[in-house]
Amino acid sequence: MKIIIVGASGTIGRKVTAALEGQHELIKVGSKSGDIQIDMTSPASIEEMFKKVGSFDAVISAAGSGHWGPLEGINDEAFRKGLNYKLMGQVNLVLIGQHLINPGGSFTLTSGILSEDPVVGGAAVSAVNAAINSFALAAAIELKNDVRINAVSPGVVEDSPEIFPAFPGHIPVTMEKVVAAYLKSVLGSMTGQVIKAF
Amino acid sequence: MKIIIVGASGTIGRKVTAALEGQHELIKVGSKSGDIQIDMTSPASIEEMFKKVGSFDAVISAAGSGHWGPLEGINDEAFRKGLNYKLMGQVNLVLIGQHLINPGGSFTLTSGILSEDPVVGGAAVSAVNAAINSFALAAAIELKNDVRINAVSPGVVEDSPEIFPAFPGHIPVTMEKVVAAYLKSVLGSMTGQVIKAF
Repeated sequence: MKIIIVGASGTIGRKVTAALEGQHELIKVGSKSGDIQIDMTSPASIEEMFKKVGSFDAVISAAGSGHWGPLEGINDEAFRKGLNYKLMGQVNLVLIGQHLINPGGSFTLTSGILSEDPVVGGAAVSAVNAAINSFALAAAIELKNDVRINAVSPGVVEDSPEIFPAFPGHIPVTMEKVVAAYLKSVLGSMTGQVIKAF
Repeated sequence: MKIIIVGASGTIGRKVTAALEGQHELIKVGSKSGDIQIDMTSPASIEEMFKKVGSFDAVISAAGSGHWGPLEGINDEAFRKGLNYKLMGQVNLVLIGQHLINPGGSFTLTSGILSEDPVVGGAAVSAVNAAINSFALAAAIELKNDVRINAVSPGVVEDSPEIFPAFPGHIPVTMEKVVAAYLKSVLGSMTGQVIKAF
């Protein structure tokens, strides 16, 4: 399978990449590293990336950040950071990629536990994660040619100890469990699912 | 109680307004009608509205639209319509209003059933509705001075027969049930809840 991994050098992306390496043709995409560079906030940059890749069977996106900070300090501009990057970056991978992906292909997006289990400072990210989950649910009933889509929703992962203090009482998820969720989406047959890795 | 109703002349807003009229001081806000006009896509316009109102105890928002259309025809610009209007309009009511609302006050936002029960043509709206639900969930744990927030998620309502064909198999919800959800949020004590009216 020819698989595009966006965010291939990130905390999650690098472990997913390692699990697929050697068994599939991987195109590693990142903002600064990888085979192809991309600006997730730019539909034109995403289109350019697909043009460089040519034919492909799957997209895994493990990219995207959003605003962190107390609700009382969030304004319109700060809130939109995650909409522009993590939400629209991933949505545009699908909106553009749906016209280019091979029949039977799949999109795997990344959301996160904050959509249902919020923490202080994460209100903007909670909204973004939920939007990604429901977009996957809704897009699944419309994609043509047996193309599938799922969202992986990881909890706080064991490889990100620096953010543990922001997630009191959250039990860190093993990278093995998180990687398994991506493999289930890409190599399995499910569609329209939120795969919870927590 | 002094209650701001945004979208007071809409299908849902007018019924909620009728249920509260006479028992509370209502400030009706709309894009073209009502006591005060507002542009939901403009934080400055929302700020101006709050300035005109002065002290208040509750905001009910039953306003906001998004893009409808087949997934294969959605692009970045179309998808963002609902983000700019229904999502950020309502989020900004909270981000700005949190600094002005009376202690013990409440915000009641409107999402919708598509976050969990999608229909063809509604992918962008599904994403927006989910974002609103999880924003309410997350904001509830951070609002100060006993201020509450909930989201009402209506199904397709009986007063909108023109959209029934787009919702095959969805059972229209009575306006009585929808109005009750708003009353529960505003007059009750719950917070951080998605009140399903379907």
